[in-house]
Amino acid sequence: MNQHYQQLVQKLEEISHLNGVMSTLGWDQEVMMPVGASEARAKQISALAGVLHERMTDPALGDCLRELREKTADAWGAIEQCNIHEALRSYELETKVPKQLVQELAELGSLGHGIWVTARQENCFADFAPVLKRFLTLKKEWAHCVAPESQPYDANIDLFERGTTMAMITPIFDRLKQELIPFINAIQDQAHQPDTSFLQGHFAIERQESLARKISRDIGFDFEKGRMDVSVHPFCGGSHPTDVRITTRYKDTHFIDSLYAVIHETGHALYEQGRPYAWGDVPAAESLTMGIHESQSLFWERMIAQGKPFCTHYFAAIREAFPDHLRNVTIDAFYRALNTCKPSFIRVEADEVTYPLHIILRYEIERGLFDGTMQVDELPQIWNELMQQYLGIIPPSDVLGVLQDSHWGSGAFGYFPSYTLGAMYACQFYKTLLRDQPDTEDQITAGNFAPTKAWLNEKIHRQGRLYAPHELVQRVTGESLNPDHFLSHLQHKYRDIYGLG
Amino acid sequence: MNQHYQQLVQKLEEISHLNGVMSTLGWDQEVMMPVGASEARAKQISALAGVLHERMTDPALGDCLRELREKTADAWGAIEQCNIHEALRSYELETKVPKQLVQELAELGSLGHGIWVTARQENCFADFAPVLKRFLTLKKEWAHCVAPESQPYDANIDLFERGTTMAMITPIFDRLKQELIPFINAIQDQAHQPDTSFLQGHFAIERQESLARKISRDIGFDFEKGRMDVSVHPFCGGSHPTDVRITTRYKDTHFIDSLYAVIHETGHALYEQGRPYAWGDVPAAESLTMGIHESQSLFWERMIAQGKPFCTHYFAAIREAFPDHLRNVTIDAFYRALNTCKPSFIRVEADEVTYPLHIILRYEIERGLFDGTMQVDELPQIWNELMQQYLGIIPPSDVLGVLQDSHWGSGAFGYFPSYTLGAMYACQFYKTLLRDQPDTEDQITAGNFAPTKAWLNEKIHRQGRLYAPHELVQRVTGESLNPDHFLSHLQHKYRDIYGLG
Repeated sequence: MNQHYQQLVQKLEEISHLNGVMSTLGWDQEVMMPVGASEARAKQISALAGVLHERMTDPALGDCLRELREKTADAWGAIEQCNIHEALRSYELETKVPKQLVQELAELGSLGHGIWVTARQENCFADFAPVLKRFLTLKKEWAHCVAPESQPYDANIDLFERGTTMAMITPIFDRLKQELIPFINAIQDQAHQPDTSFLQGHFAIERQESLARKISRDIGFDFEKGRMDVSVHPFCGGSHPTDVRITTRYKDTHFIDSLYAVIHETGHALYEQGRPYAWGDVPAAESLTMGIHESQSLFWERMIAQGKPFCTHYFAAIREAFPDHLRNVTIDAFYRALNTCKPSFIRVEADEVTYPLHIILRYEIERGLFDGTMQVDELPQIWNELMQQYLGIIPPSDVLGVLQDSHWGSGAFGYFPSYTLGAMYACQFYKTLLRDQPDTEDQITAGNFAPTKAWLNEKIHRQGRLYAPHELVQRVTGESLNPDHFLSHLQHKYRDIYGLG
Repeated sequence: MNQHYQQLVQKLEEISHLNGVMSTLGWDQEVMMPVGASEARAKQISALAGVLHERMTDPALGDCLRELREKTADAWGAIEQCNIHEALRSYELETKVPKQLVQELAELGSLGHGIWVTARQENCFADFAPVLKRFLTLKKEWAHCVAPESQPYDANIDLFERGTTMAMITPIFDRLKQELIPFINAIQDQAHQPDTSFLQGHFAIERQESLARKISRDIGFDFEKGRMDVSVHPFCGGSHPTDVRITTRYKDTHFIDSLYAVIHETGHALYEQGRPYAWGDVPAAESLTMGIHESQSLFWERMIAQGKPFCTHYFAAIREAFPDHLRNVTIDAFYRALNTCKPSFIRVEADEVTYPLHIILRYEIERGLFDGTMQVDELPQIWNELMQQYLGIIPPSDVLGVLQDSHWGSGAFGYFPSYTLGAMYACQFYKTLLRDQPDTEDQITAGNFAPTKAWLNEKIHRQGRLYAPHELVQRVTGESLNPDHFLSHLQHKYRDIYGLG
């Protein structure tokens, strides 16, 4: 093996190990850290971030990459090629941007989050607007440095969903709008809406937790290589495929949100635990993108756990956990209650039918801000107009509107599309699984998730970063991303639930 | 402020923050980490250790220290002087030793621990002997590098208890032997031994935990800046005075060990939470030595919590937690049961009277190994002979003898004396507290620990590293370390308990 390549791997593994340390700190901060430690922890994180930045911009890494780039790609196998390519991408992202801009973005990210928190508390968009304006200026400059040939918003999307551009997204999102807006209207017009009353009440938290652990373990989470804890917002963290940590939060008045958060995070966790770390702690063995990660969580949450076979298998166990509430409820009624569709203001609480419209709205705003067709000061008005157009409701305050998400406060433009790309990937993957393994739904009904997990492991998790998302989708499903599968899934499912013709 | 000094503080704080990260990893590994993650975690720790070593041996740090050393000490206040002095000490420890020796010691430490574990499992000292021999050779070489003018064992002691030498320890330990051996014999000869039967039984773990948390909080542990969890061996860890984490372990057949482990670790924790971190995250604000740290844990465990006033205050609460066992027990009987004296094989299970002899035995063996008057191969025999001389019992196996402690397997020679130095410091501090605040025992009886904690905060915790241990003892108590206080404490207390003349 080439000496420069060995040197590269050594440097990349050191970066990966230090990133693992950073992840452990992040998990600890959300789950374990005493409240009084936040100032000390910020300093520790900053010291480690400094070391990581130093390693990622190490001129010796640059020299090593230049040597390797000059060899023909043919000299390397797929994994080696991928490592070199990914390391170059990351090195260039870190070094193409002037230090001053990097620092200003980091400072604004930290400051901006605090300003967003306060603006949201006080329902005052005007306080937040200057942060947004400054971020747009800096993010355009940043895009010009890293990808001068691209449109600035495309460069931002690429950070989260590489190889994906407005040219790919816009027609797909337009199609979703065109189909979903009238479909949601039709659902709302139905006189008969599912009964969800039995999902409210008092649900002992120990019972919720033990049910969640059982289901997470059943679908394949390896608790020898992971943990499950409590945090304010559910997330999947950890430091390595052998150390994957999911969280949820419990309310004693409701159990579905918490249980489905565990299933969602278990989907992320199975991806992490399934990564090909036998290749080493190198970029090729990392998870691919935000969108692909979200496809894995939504696969389990929406495609599996909101489906009839899953409900059929688990209803007895769920009823046994909460007999007072579910004694007189049928599997079918439970399934319908899980799958209601109703426009609402808050993205993170939206159902699978209305969710894409929340995303499309944000996508169109981000695109408009970057191409100059929208102005920051007009956002509350634009937001509310689009909400009315797309979902037929107008937020009574900016807290329930333009101020609801944390993303913009930390400068994460281009992130939102990943959620709906993930939902569409998940659906297209599920359709392919049904084609590859036609007995899948029978197996799920029988509580056997192993063939499904094995298929995801093989087709997606163990591919690491060998392919860009659009290539992976093509390889796994035999076609490029096609919103028809997602639309047809939603239309079949919700026509049945709501008794539409 | 001098520019070099500012640069020094910046570098020292970075090192401190990265050390805080390392501590969090260590805590996580013992308390939270999934079992499957140990290999990945070892790599993460190794990467971070590499960064720390790089920072601690940074030639720019050396240059900075050389500049500062050349200024007269008068130019600086006590804190600045201490930071410069401590940084020099640490820089020289890190850089005076050839890299190859550092690496060999690190490898042997890691390997040696594993070999010790196996040798102990199989009760086979011969398997462990080569590790000990190699360590002795390397540790002598190491001592020659760091302190060529000192005796090699003194250089090793200095690592844990700076400024303390065999010349100081030997006469004190000889005095302890001379007094304690006949005293323990006299205790064993008494026909009447305290009843401890009511300390065995079934004690619900939730009750043990809630009692332990209450007492830890009462004596002053700040749970806003700390946590309490479970681990295999109790310890006090954490990353900063605002993030101090203690652990214990529970058995449902016994509650005293667990409760007193919490009190012991709370003593360490109060020291950590009381450190003067307003001075910055710099060496002057660190805890002083192992011995002084142990003085703080033993102060609370032995001097306070094994005393009559503490038992008087808490007996009602303890009886309320475990009414079935303690219904017919008096405070006096409880106090006597807590304070039994009986020779036993295992150091960590020993009572406060026999404990020093376990330490003196180890001290004499280490001294003999370093000065060549003892040979590794003879250790099992020497150990057993000394056990018989000092405690009148002979271990039936090396597992209960020479193989019981982990220290030598990782090369920690010179550590053991700290335990008994700590016990003597604790006693001398307690005597001084009684002189400074004569109502201390009344306050404790009334459950008011604040004046005691405040005294320790002021006299010890907030002194950081300004003074060497022998200087601190002199400043706090008005005399140098004097074993009479410790001996008189033990003799008075145990004469009373055992009804000796």
